[in-house]
Amino acid sequence: MPLETAPSALAPGQVIARGAARHLASLGFACVEEIVPTRGLRLDILALGPKGELWVVECKSSRADFTSDGKWHHYLEWGDRFFWAVGADFPTELLPEASGLIVADGYGGEILRMPEETRLAGARRAAVTRRFAQHAARRLQALRDPGARLGEL
Amino acid sequence: MPLETAPSALAPGQVIARGAARHLASLGFACVEEIVPTRGLRLDILALGPKGELWVVECKSSRADFTSDGKWHHYLEWGDRFFWAVGADFPTELLPEASGLIVADGYGGEILRMPEETRLAGARRAAVTRRFAQHAARRLQALRDPGARLGEL
Repeated sequence: MPLETAPSALAPGQVIARGAARHLASLGFACVEEIVPTRGLRLDILALGPKGELWVVECKSSRADFTSDGKWHHYLEWGDRFFWAVGADFPTELLPEASGLIVADGYGGEILRMPEETRLAGARRAAVTRRFAQHAARRLQALRDPGARLGEL
Repeated sequence: MPLETAPSALAPGQVIARGAARHLASLGFACVEEIVPTRGLRLDILALGPKGELWVVECKSSRADFTSDGKWHHYLEWGDRFFWAVGADFPTELLPEASGLIVADGYGGEILRMPEETRLAGARRAAVTRRFAQHAARRLQALRDPGARLGEL
């Protein structure tokens, strides 16, 4: 078991991701971080709910972090709901109003705005859930058995 | 990153599981170990293939380990194929001929007999895949963030 990582040892976006993931876990969601669902696109958090819901969370630590992201529209298609997760000092008026909003720090977070749901079609839900499962299991196996050659994670 | 665990530090069944999981990874499968798909039942390995295949692998380190297991028929319903994984010295004539057979040690393994496929129905496949995903992601989050209170894993 690794030692607990203090929030101060994480990058600002990772601190927010940790708190957001803790909150999502308290709602019964299982979370993976930094998953690449398709080439060239990385989601900060993909969360799988008790009923199979898929939520995408993008973490932004600052105004510049948000304004420099030209890809965020592409995140929407990987989940049923899309949230921004930001720190308490983030200028939230920048964020599109239709998106969800989570405010988080390194210890926890909460959902301030629940976005509308745009449900994935069945085949796509199955494919994204499978990708989530493979991502999590391969990373877990790499930790359990560092000697295994697992190829690209 | 934890230090590499030498096979000698693992229980005999875990040594076999490690080698079997390494072999399955080389075939493109992502594996979780010791997953509880339903109350009172634990699968040694559940493997998710590149096309969504679900394979169940039960590891047996000795004759006694096999003969004392009264539950193995229940494992069949959690995957499309079922395998025994055993060490090279296991008396394989004990094993049902319709089951798959993997021979493994702490470093790797190979499939000696491929069983017939009994494909899960779609809804069940989705549910088992989701269970696999939640298991792997929760364990991974517990390692990444030991301070999170994740409840029952």
